[in-house]
Amino acid sequence: MILLKKCLILIVYLSGFVFAETEFSKPKPAIDHPRKIIFSIDSTDDIEVNHVISTVNNVIKYYRPENTEVAVVVYSQGVKVLLKNSDVNTRKRIEALMTYDIEFIACENSLRTLGIKKKDLIPDLSYGTAGIVEIIERKLRGFTYIKL
Amino acid sequence: MILLKKCLILIVYLSGFVFAETEFSKPKPAIDHPRKIIFSIDSTDDIEVNHVISTVNNVIKYYRPENTEVAVVVYSQGVKVLLKNSDVNTRKRIEALMTYDIEFIACENSLRTLGIKKKDLIPDLSYGTAGIVEIIERKLRGFTYIKL
Amino acid sequence: MILLKKCLILIVYLSGFVFAETEFSKPKPAIDHPRKIIFSIDSTDDIEVNHVISTVNNVIKYYRPENTEVAVVVYSQGVKVLLKNSDVNTRKRIEALMTYDIEFIACENSLRTLGIKKKDLIPDLSYGTAGIVEIIERKLRGFTYIKL
Repeated sequence: MILLKKCLILIVYLSGFVFAETEFSKPKPAIDHPRKIIFSIDSTDDIEVNHVISTVNNVIKYYRPENTEVAVVVYSQGVKVLLKNSDVNTRKRIEALMTYDIEFIACENSLRTLGIKKKDLIPDLSYGTAGIVEIIERKLRGFTYIKL
Repeated sequence: MILLKKCLILIVYLSGFVFAETEFSKPKPAIDHPRKIIFSIDSTDDIEVNHVISTVNNVIKYYRPENTEVAVVVYSQGVKVLLKNSDVNTRKRIEALMTYDIEFIACENSLRTLGIKKKDLIPDLSYGTAGIVEIIERKLRGFTYIKL
Repeated sequence: MILLKKCLILIVYLSGFVFAETEFSKPKPAIDHPRKIIFSIDSTDDIEVNHVISTVNNVIKYYRPENTEVAVVVYSQGVKVLLKNSDVNTRKRIEALMTYDIEFIACENSLRTLGIKKKDLIPDLSYGTAGIVEIIERKLRGFTYIKL
């Protein structure tokens, strides 16, 4: 038993050591103090889109999903990524993020400009009149905007 | 008269519905609480420059010009865009924005590095010693910086 | 003596005039109120990397090194720039910045993904578990993030 306890203490100590490097700001991320973060997608470039999706994945893994409130604002050419008949793998990755309550917000101005109907987009999206305005207003509500 | 009133109520209701999607943060944008926003131009790439100009246009249209205070910091190669003999259409679009009190701020360090004289730039520009410093100082004064 | 004094007043006046253009926000940058700024490097592209390095140089020259606290978060492919056997000139420029206490923070997730060992990187780096998380947490501690 004592050996087990020592092992546990060692594990706690080591894991504390490994994760100590990025210092959390106060208040620390928690369910009632979630990290509020916005990302954006403004092109259909596969590398860029997947870079955003992977980064969102890493961020929620790091903070844990319950300690985050993440929104991805999709505007300009980027809205094409949200089409039902867009790339299957990208769609799967986006829908997987949505199961963790990541909000994908499509820019209605961009949809109108590109002649895209909402019924042709994947379900359960959020909508904002203008992508940039959505980003500005959320920043004013305490979201951190990370432009990749 | 009653029909007219019902129509008016319907219009108010519908327009409220249409514009309800992007939620304004508090304090709402107003003449005495303008949304302060900085954009930047750091290249002469036509698509990028026009993307910034169009976005500024959309943003002031959305908030209304009187509820905004918008500055565009122009630095690095981007200052060439402000030359009097630069692309005519771009110049017209920039001058049109300036009539709405959008401030274009040229980086003096970039001008010096590129050997450009102020007298060769379009009139009524603002100047800052260093573009990035201008952005940092304005962020500290409550401007939201949107890097496109 | 009076002539000398007048000259000094003129110099003070002129230098005040020349540097008046970028207005400092309050509190003004000072040793006990340093400007806290984060930059990032996420690619090995020579032009981009040198753009970041030059900008850091300009920023600390403008504010003076003692009035700044600058960190450069290096993540994704960018961590290759920190390899001991990376480009010699870039390494010299990075090490020169480090003598001014500019902190270079390598993303450990990126190192792991790319199979790079810390012992192969230049000495005296800082480390963070995840580059983007490092940026987010520092923003919450009052750093201004400038994405170039």
